Amino acid sequence: MAAIGLPVPPGFTVTTEVCTHYYTNGQSYPTELSVQLKQALAIVEAQVGKKFGDPDNPLLLSVRSGARASMPGMMDTVLNLGLNDQTVQALIKQSGDRRFAFDSYRRFVQMYADVVMCLDLSHFEKLLERAKERRGVSLDCDLLAEDLEALVVAYKARVYEELGVRFPEDPQDQLWGAMGAVFGSWMNQRAKTYRRLHDIPESWGTAVSVQAMVFGNMGSDCATGVAFTRNPSNGINDFYGEFLVNAQGEDVVAGIRTPQDLSIVGRKSHGSELPSLEEVMPNLFQELMVIRAKLEEHFKDMQDIEFTIQRGTLYMLQTRTGKRTAHAALQIAVDMAQEGLISRSEAVMRLKPELLDQLLHPILDPKAEKKILTKGLPASPGAASGTVVFTADEAELRAKNGEKVILVRIETSPEDIHGIHSAQGVLTTRGGMTSHAAVVARGMGRPCVAGAGGVHVDYAAASLTIGSLTIKQGEVLTIEGTTGDVMLGEIPTVPAKLGGNFATIMLWADEFRRMQVRANAETPEDAQAAKDFGAEGIGLVRTEHMFFEGDRIVAMREMILASDETGRRAALAKLLVMQRSDMVKLFRIMDGLPVTVRLLDPPLHEFIPHTETAMASVAKSSGVPLERIRRRASELRETNPMLGHRGCRLAVTFPEVCEMQARAIFEAAAEVALTSESGRPPVAEVMVPLVATVQEIELLKVIIEDTAVKVQAEQGVSIKYHIGTMIELPRAALQAGPIASVAEFFSFGTNDLTQSTWGLSRDDAGSFLPEYKAKGIVEQDPFVSLDQEGVGELLKIAVQRGRAVRPGMKIGICGEHGGDPSSINFCETIGLDYVSCSPFRVPIARLAAAQAAM
Amino acid sequence: MAAIGLPVPPGFTVTTEVCTHYYTNGQSYPTELSVQLKQALAIVEAQVGKKFGDPDNPLLLSVRSGARASMPGMMDTVLNLGLNDQTVQALIKQSGDRRFAFDSYRRFVQMYADVVMCLDLSHFEKLLERAKERRGVSLDCDLLAEDLEALVVAYKARVYEELGVRFPEDPQDQLWGAMGAVFGSWMNQRAKTYRRLHDIPESWGTAVSVQAMVFGNMGSDCATGVAFTRNPSNGINDFYGEFLVNAQGEDVVAGIRTPQDLSIVGRKSHGSELPSLEEVMPNLFQELMVIRAKLEEHFKDMQDIEFTIQRGTLYMLQTRTGKRTAHAALQIAVDMAQEGLISRSEAVMRLKPELLDQLLHPILDPKAEKKILTKGLPASPGAASGTVVFTADEAELRAKNGEKVILVRIETSPEDIHGIHSAQGVLTTRGGMTSHAAVVARGMGRPCVAGAGGVHVDYAAASLTIGSLTIKQGEVLTIEGTTGDVMLGEIPTVPAKLGGNFATIMLWADEFRRMQVRANAETPEDAQAAKDFGAEGIGLVRTEHMFFEGDRIVAMREMILASDETGRRAALAKLLVMQRSDMVKLFRIMDGLPVTVRLLDPPLHEFIPHTETAMASVAKSSGVPLERIRRRASELRETNPMLGHRGCRLAVTFPEVCEMQARAIFEAAAEVALTSESGRPPVAEVMVPLVATVQEIELLKVIIEDTAVKVQAEQGVSIKYHIGTMIELPRAALQAGPIASVAEFFSFGTNDLTQSTWGLSRDDAGSFLPEYKAKGIVEQDPFVSLDQEGVGELLKIAVQRGRAVRPGMKIGICGEHGGDPSSINFCETIGLDYVSCSPFRVPIARLAAAQAAM
Ligand SMILES: [Mg+2]
Ligand SMILES: [Mg+2]
Repeated sequence: MAAIGLPVPPGFTVTTEVCTHYYTNGQSYPTELSVQLKQALAIVEAQVGKKFGDPDNPLLLSVRSGARASMPGMMDTVLNLGLNDQTVQALIKQSGDRRFAFDSYRRFVQMYADVVMCLDLSHFEKLLERAKERRGVSLDCDLLAEDLEALVVAYKARVYEELGVRFPEDPQDQLWGAMGAVFGSWMNQRAKTYRRLHDIPESWGTAVSVQAMVFGNMGSDCATGVAFTRNPSNGINDFYGEFLVNAQGEDVVAGIRTPQDLSIVGRKSHGSELPSLEEVMPNLFQELMVIRAKLEEHFKDMQDIEFTIQRGTLYMLQTRTGKRTAHAALQIAVDMAQEGLISRSEAVMRLKPELLDQLLHPILDPKAEKKILTKGLPASPGAASGTVVFTADEAELRAKNGEKVILVRIETSPEDIHGIHSAQGVLTTRGGMTSHAAVVARGMGRPCVAGAGGVHVDYAAASLTIGSLTIKQGEVLTIEGTTGDVMLGEIPTVPAKLGGNFATIMLWADEFRRMQVRANAETPEDAQAAKDFGAEGIGLVRTEHMFFEGDRIVAMREMILASDETGRRAALAKLLVMQRSDMVKLFRIMDGLPVTVRLLDPPLHEFIPHTETAMASVAKSSGVPLERIRRRASELRETNPMLGHRGCRLAVTFPEVCEMQARAIFEAAAEVALTSESGRPPVAEVMVPLVATVQEIELLKVIIEDTAVKVQAEQGVSIKYHIGTMIELPRAALQAGPIASVAEFFSFGTNDLTQSTWGLSRDDAGSFLPEYKAKGIVEQDPFVSLDQEGVGELLKIAVQRGRAVRPGMKIGICGEHGGDPSSINFCETIGLDYVSCSPFRVPIARLAAAQAAM
Repeated sequence: MAAIGLPVPPGFTVTTEVCTHYYTNGQSYPTELSVQLKQALAIVEAQVGKKFGDPDNPLLLSVRSGARASMPGMMDTVLNLGLNDQTVQALIKQSGDRRFAFDSYRRFVQMYADVVMCLDLSHFEKLLERAKERRGVSLDCDLLAEDLEALVVAYKARVYEELGVRFPEDPQDQLWGAMGAVFGSWMNQRAKTYRRLHDIPESWGTAVSVQAMVFGNMGSDCATGVAFTRNPSNGINDFYGEFLVNAQGEDVVAGIRTPQDLSIVGRKSHGSELPSLEEVMPNLFQELMVIRAKLEEHFKDMQDIEFTIQRGTLYMLQTRTGKRTAHAALQIAVDMAQEGLISRSEAVMRLKPELLDQLLHPILDPKAEKKILTKGLPASPGAASGTVVFTADEAELRAKNGEKVILVRIETSPEDIHGIHSAQGVLTTRGGMTSHAAVVARGMGRPCVAGAGGVHVDYAAASLTIGSLTIKQGEVLTIEGTTGDVMLGEIPTVPAKLGGNFATIMLWADEFRRMQVRANAETPEDAQAAKDFGAEGIGLVRTEHMFFEGDRIVAMREMILASDETGRRAALAKLLVMQRSDMVKLFRIMDGLPVTVRLLDPPLHEFIPHTETAMASVAKSSGVPLERIRRRASELRETNPMLGHRGCRLAVTFPEVCEMQARAIFEAAAEVALTSESGRPPVAEVMVPLVATVQEIELLKVIIEDTAVKVQAEQGVSIKYHIGTMIELPRAALQAGPIASVAEFFSFGTNDLTQSTWGLSRDDAGSFLPEYKAKGIVEQDPFVSLDQEGVGELLKIAVQRGRAVRPGMKIGICGEHGGDPSSINFCETIGLDYVSCSPFRVPIARLAAAQAAM
């Protein structure tokens, strides 16, 4: 701050050369240091009008490390250095506050003993506890001056007891001691490790920064305050802060005295009777206003500042980038760019993409009281309250009657989709960030807390327990999917607001973006939402999702359980009609933007009826005897469905399914092409999932192409289409060369690719991944943020080998990572053409993609 | 054969230059060809004493492709070219066999129409069927001469009907037509594809080979026969064959006339009254004996030959390497090497490693009659009969009473191990070549047929059905694990014989072998078997297998279901004692050879009690309430256990388990080291499974090493040990560099690596892999033979990156592929140090490793 001409407490720096000398000369100081130190101190003493160690008018100092880069492990600041039994008396006299003086003294002893003498803090905490017990109070601030005075004595005695040396009384000894501690901390283990990890050369050394202490509690011409250069909750360009006359820093936030507003405007808006700084010290207020402008000019961002006024002189104690809400962040970035303080690209770069999530979903009213019962994984953002239900059917039933419900399940399966759709939010006790519940909820924009291991569900009793608390069906819970919190009762929420700033920043972001952003969507609602959020196509239509709804599941099951091709074809004929009409809607909505349709993917297992009722229903609809259905269902059950009969393996063994899907897609495309009002013909990208060998895609491409040729001839229209493949198995990544000779595009399915590369099921990892994070084995859940080292290498290999065979090949990603900013950044570095994510993450992806390109 | 001076029917070759001319000149022939052809024919006519097209004494020809490399798609041979309505009369006269002549004529028309005129064979098959119906017979050979004569007419009529051209009657036209077909087939699609895949240049072209037909049925100075230069069933160096006077080739094997032996010795050994060739045509027999020696001298192998004697002249029609039994192959290889005909290395190279399997296991008596009910996968070799049982307990019970049983299960789990052990063989209806049943059965040397989808098991009824046949518990089945056959009733078997030849070839193989061969074993029996078979250490001790037996499973479950570390430690204390005593036995048996011990690996899931009884048993033994056990068991259940909480993930979350196992290993090693009689101290290699990140092995190495240090101090003895890791996930292969900085050795777990690289569960793949093979998508089940392209690349990457960080690092393989010859060959090419396989495959691996190194 001194460098930009702001008033800071006087001080000086002991340079890094001293540090170098210290280490190259057996931890001793250069001989001239002592003299230079005295000279520097004299200047500070003159500026402040006090003398270091003077029993009547003592200068007190703060000493801290002045390393070029701040780094953990370096010595903390020591405040109030220079206090001893004599000088404390002067402080009492000057501040008129005996309690304040002894509290400062006590803190100084504790701080010095801790950071300079390396005595464990617990010693002092115990003594403090004992003092409070004796006084019969529970808060530090309820201790009296005499208690604190006694504590100083006790602290010093404990230092001697533990370390065998006296606490230094001489201020000079204190200063040299603190200086040695700073230099010493340069070579401690933590600092060394940090430097190694961050490539900071050891030779840099550290400096020691010495500054005069200033006090805001030395009379009515003193004050202390905190401020934000703009409003941190809504971002409006107002000076926003509080102060107290004759007070020290902590008093402002301690809540004992009511702080006063800085400005008249602020005072009035709060309806406060207390005079503002603008009124009581107008000159100093003006000085602050100038400083505010200078700070924003210099740091190009909203600042959170601390200041002290000592006897009419303003000192800036601290400035740092201010924390703010998502709304404020957006407002400030847009405003500053429009004010010309920063460029548009800086505005775009400054917004954390994750922040947008808060803007797109309802959040808990920040003022509401919350009782957090337990925590799960923040699986889908937003807050929701509702009565607890345990089955999808119950959720649907109650929702139809206008009730808001939270669907609670151990885990969800495709059969629960209608329940997730009916619910305000979803809570599961098992599964990770990419479990079924999480993926579906994100897709629908429903808040979801997943894998809340602390919740035990008892379906039979229709209740859940958290610790000793039991919650029955019909009672109310609130979940917060951005944090993972689960709370009792209904907590008011604030709806999402998407103002013009949002649109502005999106437009600016798009100027810098290279990669396209698409969405994963299969319902018309999702597709529309995606388009509204700016999606440039659909990157993933999970066709199987279309088969779970209503009666469709029966036809689907009929198809799967059929014992021969004839039975399958009969069921497929029913499914064709439905699939085609779904596809017509999607092509219409996307209006010429590409739509990537994935062929049937999930393990057949997921469609198998598990209950007698469901099996009876299939038996009835297909005319196949129940016994045979039961037997076939048992045959189809798999030990590891994720590694089973799924993906293109289904199309290989049931080519008629592939043919039906291709026909549905192409017939829909033909219909839309013939009736399109915009004149923009649909673009169908048919995508084959879970390919492991080039032979698979070779075989299926023939079926798909033959169907395309037939449908075009039948409908008399030419259809724009491409046939590509997902790369979601390590083998496919390695074989990307041969596969690219057949596939016209690649789309990375990074969920499956992560599963297979790690040998880790996203449904089961929840039970131990948290411990893996806690033990530092993984930094991030690899299902949330792409594992760049492992999975990422396979992506790189596939891009390189694929494009070597098919230059300029279109390659995207449609796994959950397509909406994760750091993963998006990786996608940019390896040259992908697009990312595809849940509709609600499209804005985030647009922003992240822009930042990645910059 | 002509090249080595053997008598072959006269003939000539139209060279490849003609082929080249044909294609470069719009499919026309060089003008001089016609003249040259006439000259060549004249020479043949002179040699044979017949004239091409002569109605009284016609020369008949065979025409076939003479490509440098044989390739599919090239034209088949056309026999008896030159026959027409006139020449067939001469053939009747000369052979005195009207039926033979018209059968030859009919076949010629069919063959020519098929391969030269491209008319589908089905036309002729239909006509033939109709002829048999009319005659009221079901076999071709029951048709009379007149039927065949009529068929020739009908065939020709059909040719005209379908193609609109007459069948060529002029022998010259026939010859030019056949020649054109040979050249034409050079450019057909199948041949082109084959050449592309096998790098055969198109410019080579093909030749046309024309040879005179000879006949053994033209009088009593004619004969035809087949022979093996050595006995194909036992390998003894005797001339072994049969012939018939005045007969054509097919008659010898048709079983209508009884063939005669070639030699007097042969005749006597068969107790035949019919005179031998040695007796009826002693000169020609001597000529054959000389030819036999020449052939073996030239081909360096036992030959299977066909010959024809036409009017006192011997013609060799065909010679090829003779098929033989495993015993014969071994005998012949050893004999030939000892006779000096081939070198030892050739003897070693010549034996297919898989053949040894037949020598190591009982086989079905080749003479016994069999009724094959269905087929499954040949999962573990050998034949076994026994009464059918459906539970492991029943198997054990009956086996204790001396009954031989076949255990039939839908699939097996670790809880069935005692049943597999008690059974003669295992039959499962689900699962592939590396399913649990397959792996365990191979390890124990029990025959196993796995994944027999045609068998439906009904546990409740204690019966199985195959088609409409129901077999109840107690009825008898026979299984053949080398072929996958399932047969009704008891079929006699022949026990394995391991003669001196086996030992000889193993010794010779070891001279050439570079890689070491170890075995996967955890029981003392397996370890002893492995050592007897020449294993040079144990490459994989699956410690969890030790926890399934008897009461151990209860302690194991107690450990898993414990809700805290204290509970776990109590259970672990029990397990420690057992594990240590097991390890003592293994170290003793291996007597200084390295023993690689893998830490607990399988999904906890596998240990979880599924029945109320089992849960009650754990509750009782651990003192934990049943309700809690039930809840914990349900918590631990996983959707995809193969991708779940298993491998080193268990050790990371339950470090005390890792510690117990390390302690058991080191305490056992210490005990054996202190008491070893041989003075060879044990070598313990502790192996961490399913590592995905270097952090995992880093963390666990500390625990293992600390335990080693403690145990050595406690026991006062130094232990030889290494700590390494399995590479069985794609991520581990990619991260082999960092991992090698911690791990001291690698062992590839190619079962898991194949599962994860392909995203394919070996338990579930059985339902569609057969179709994948049938459709040509995979050539081999990747769980049986290492996928060199995909999984193999990861192996290469890991070897290269691992040794770059730790030069000379020891790297082996312990997946099921360690016993598969082509996989072993791959391991040699990428420089592995050892392969480890089931004990019963150790000889196979020794041989395969030797061949790979040669
Ligand atoms: Mg996928
Ligand atoms: Mg494994």
